[in-house]
This record gives sequence, C-alpha cells and structure tokens, in this order.
Amino acid sequence: MHILVTGAAGMIGRKLVDRLAGDRTISALTLLDIVAPAPPAGFAGTVTPMAADLSAPGTAARAVAARPEVIFHLAAVVSGEAEADFDKGYRVNLDGTRALFEAIRNAGRGYRPRLVFTSSIAAYGAPFPETIDDDFVTTPHTSYGTQKVIDELLLADYSRRGILDGIGIRLPNICIRPGAPNKAASGFFSNIMREPLAGQEAVLPVGDEVRMWHASPRAAIGFLIHAAAIDLAPLGGRRSLMMPGVSATVAEQIAALRQVAGEAPVRLIRRQPDPALSKMFATIPGRFDPRRAAALGFQAETSFEAIIRTHIEDELGG
Amino acid sequence: MHILVTGAAGMIGRKLVDRLAGDRTISALTLLDIVAPAPPAGFAGTVTPMAADLSAPGTAARAVAARPEVIFHLAAVVSGEAEADFDKGYRVNLDGTRALFEAIRNAGRGYRPRLVFTSSIAAYGAPFPETIDDDFVTTPHTSYGTQKVIDELLLADYSRRGILDGIGIRLPNICIRPGAPNKAASGFFSNIMREPLAGQEAVLPVGDEVRMWHASPRAAIGFLIHAAAIDLAPLGGRRSLMMPGVSATVAEQIAALRQVAGEAPVRLIRRQPDPALSKMFATIPGRFDPRRAAALGFQAETSFEAIIRTHIEDELGG
Repeated sequence: MHILVTGAAGMIGRKLVDRLAGDRTISALTLLDIVAPAPPAGFAGTVTPMAADLSAPGTAARAVAARPEVIFHLAAVVSGEAEADFDKGYRVNLDGTRALFEAIRNAGRGYRPRLVFTSSIAAYGAPFPETIDDDFVTTPHTSYGTQKVIDELLLADYSRRGILDGIGIRLPNICIRPGAPNKAASGFFSNIMREPLAGQEAVLPVGDEVRMWHASPRAAIGFLIHAAAIDLAPLGGRRSLMMPGVSATVAEQIAALRQVAGEAPVRLIRRQPDPALSKMFATIPGRFDPRRAAALGFQAETSFEAIIRTHIEDELGG
Repeated sequence: MHILVTGAAGMIGRKLVDRLAGDRTISALTLLDIVAPAPPAGFAGTVTPMAADLSAPGTAARAVAARPEVIFHLAAVVSGEAEADFDKGYRVNLDGTRALFEAIRNAGRGYRPRLVFTSSIAAYGAPFPETIDDDFVTTPHTSYGTQKVIDELLLADYSRRGILDGIGIRLPNICIRPGAPNKAASGFFSNIMREPLAGQEAVLPVGDEVRMWHASPRAAIGFLIHAAAIDLAPLGGRRSLMMPGVSATVAEQIAALRQVAGEAPVRLIRRQPDPALSKMFATIPGRFDPRRAAALGFQAETSFEAIIRTHIEDELGG
C-alpha cells in the first residue's frame, strides 16, 4: 500500500508518519510539506519526500502521480497565521486543497483514494447551545475555520461524485502539544500544561472559566488511522464529523495538573490576560455530543488527567 | 445611489430591476449577465449593461469600478446545469463569486458595499428533522448547493473582515416561476401549476407526497429589497439565513390549484414518474422554522392558495 501524507513535517504529520512506519502492509510513503519531511526511522519501504506547496501549479499532480491508495491531507496554514495573512490562508488552505482534489479527479482511470482530511473545531462559531450535537450548524468565526469548512464541503461533493472516498475529521483542540508553540491562537491551552511540567513558567492569557474540547496528540493519530480504515458508507452525504474529546475549563485543566503532578507546576502558571485572545475565546465550542464519531468507533481520552498522563508517557519518557 | 445587479437577465433579476427602476433614490444601475440585460422601462437614471462572465479575468473589477453602494449578487449556474457540468458550476458559482468579493476587497479606499447574495434551500441535505430550524447544519447534496454554501462562508468571512456588508438569503423554491422552464431540477413544482393555469398539460415526475418549501417570485423580490435596507448587526457572524415560505406537498399544491381555479387545470397534470428526479426529491427540506428571518422582518405568503393568486395577479393580469 502506498500512502501520501501532506503536512508531513508538522507535529501531527510527524507522529502519524512514525506510526505508519511500523505498519508492514505499507510499501511506500510520499511525504509532502513546504520543508522536506524527514524519513521515518525503521521503515522498510520507499520514502519519497516532497518539499512543495500544494497550491503551486503541478505540485498536486506530482503528489498523486503514483496513485496512493490513502491520502492523509493535513497540510494547512494554522489559525493565527491564516487570520494574519488573508491571502496566504486562502491560497494554502482553500486553493491547495482544491488543487489536490482536482489532481485526484484528473488522475482518471478509476483512481478513487481514501482521503482523510483534518478539519477543526474552528468549524463552529458562537452562539452555542450548552452541548453541540452532530446536526449543529458550522458557522466559523475565523478565516481558518472558514477555509476548513469550505474544504469539508468540497470533500463531500467530490466524494458524492465518486472522485474520492473522503472523510473530514474535526479535531478537538490538540492538547498537550509537544515542542515549541506554533502560531495557533489556541496554543496557551497546551503551554500552561507543557511548560510547567518541564519546570518552566507559562502565560495564561484568558480567564479560568474558558471551556475547551481537548484530545491528545496520541488520540488524534488514533482518529487518523481509524478514519483511513473504516467503512464510510454510514456517513451518507455528511462526510465530516466532530471527533470525541474531553470538555474542560482552564480551571479544570489546572486542577488535573495539580492532581497528576502536584502544586509545584501549578505555581508556574502566570495569569496575564490578553484582551484580543480573551475576546476570541470568550465564546468557544467547549462541549460536544459527538455520537456519530462514537458510533463509528472513534475514541479519545475521557478525562483531562488522562490527557496529562498521555503527555508524560509519550513526551516525557513516562 | 448606484446599484449593481449580477444575473440581471434572469427571472428574479429582471423582476428585481423592474422594481428598482421605480425607486427615485436610485441614480444608476449596473446590470451584469452573460447576455446583456435589457434596460428597465421608465427608469430616469443611468443604466450600464454588461454582458460578461464574473469569473473571467477583469470582469468583477469592472463591475465594481464605479463603487456601487448596493450589490445584488444573483448570477449563478442553476442546479441542474451545475450538476451536469462540474467545471462550469464551480467556475461560475464559486470562482465568479470569489472574484466579485476580491474585486470589492481590491477597490480599497474604504469601499464596503451592502451585498445581498441569493443562496438556496439547496444548502440543506438529508437526513432532516420534522422541522428545520436556524441552527440546523448545511450539508448540501448537490454541487450547486455546495457552491452556494461555500459562497455563504466566503460572504461571512469577507463581512467579518469589513470588506463588505453581506447577507445571504436562502431562497425557498420559487413558485410559480413564470415563463419557460429553466434547467433547475425543481422546475416541475412550478410547471404543474403554471402550465395548467394556461390551459396546457404538465408532467408531474414525483409522487404527490413530496413536500417542499415555497415562496412566490414577488415574495423573493421583497426579500431582496428588504435585505438591502435593514440593519445587519443582529445577524452577528451568521450572515446567511433561511427565508420564510409555505410548506406544501405536491398534493397540497394540487388541492390549492383546485380551490383557486377549479377542476379543469387539475386534469391537465399528468403523472409520469421520473426515477432520477423521484430519488433526488425523496428527501428534501420541506418545512422550516425560519425565526431569524421573521425577527428581521422578512415576509412571504402564508398559504399555497396565496402563491397561486400572486401568480394570477402578477403574470396572468389578474
């Protein structure tokens, strides 16, 4: 089996590729990103790294030229950057995705890959009910979210047309993100856990009452692998769906940190309200009832303590 | 005041332009369509007809060069054609709309027109609840509906960015459409009323139990005029909304026809089931609770009899 991963050099991309590298049924990996992704350790098959922008002419056609059976399409400009750079956000997140779908369409000769697209909780915009169900409208309030929902719509139409066999998974906030902060506006949810666990101070720019929907990087990789393998017929025409996660306020995150690691890391969280971020996170989708995902077998952590323990196991050597 | 109407040569476009022509506060009309729209009778101001395709390079910039304060963006490839011609549908309905929005953005110097976009009931896809409310998800099951919802998303993001002041009105099925049938798949809902009222036979290709959400052409023009004038602040980030209408089954349409015009026209309806159309209309959104539109003052007929009487008044000289 041949797999294409776009955004393969990103945090989720690298973890996914490491996981795929251990699968003996995979003979070839095409790894695309704007910087050449590193080949995974211990993979016996062929690796084709591509340093390219999907929205550039010809890139998408080259990426699918070898007709990969499964495509994980993760490549995207993140939320903060898509908000700051209007043109770049639309070019990469909308035009890049459309170019990929068109390249698949133009490959012809019955080519119809499974395509797993990572959408986002940013698909949703306030006002929200207490709990958001699978029938709730997607009205994003950022350019990033707008681009993700447009991609979801294209994914559904190209799937309906039989051009690809797509599924869009709306990722919860990925927490605890390892490594250095990226340009995602939601980075602080991870920073206030990861940095204190490493003995470093972290800034909390919003109020303790802010509620978010979280899943670990490990859970996210699980969603992707599961999405690539399952029968998608039960999705019908609705090819995108919210993934399971843990609903927690910042206060509940901090309480979980205290329970798992004691008082010392909690003291390293410094409250320094940021008016712009406080406004952006005043009304966010913090609680879901993702029944479709549950019915399809998607699974995540069930407590924030478990999310912290996953981080300690996967990133801090236990 | 200067007004731009795209799709000005279409059925709704012509009726809208006729209505605008009677408004003394309007000094100029730019009328765009792929064929040159006819200037309206009795209009004292300047009319600039443009025979052009919005998706062609430079067209959109020319259309907004005179900085119209209000833009009615109706231009679109209809549902049947967008389904039959994938490339044309996306080029006109997605790329053309995006080109218009980009031209507005690039006009600069504080230009921020009111933009009234006609979306569609095709924004919705099954499965449906008994009644569809304003928070119900938009998951179109046609390429046309996909393109309309993508345009709605762009409209919201460009509005949020302050580039334009947009509102997307999701039109019910427009019934009774005057004139010759167009390529809209839903044409039969009108055909089975209009043709018998004119003494002609009409084909009913679906079952009597099919339920649809209808409004007259006159009501649609009322929506457009109202949308151009009202304060849009109450919309918040959700710039598109379902319009009011009448929920009726085909059987209820026929009963209304009998009540208004007697048994003779009813006998001219010939049942000839079309498997493809029957499948397409097996699950359609037939009943809404459009509270947001009602709160904003949008109004439509309240019975199918009233829709038939509107047709007789407006198209058949009473």
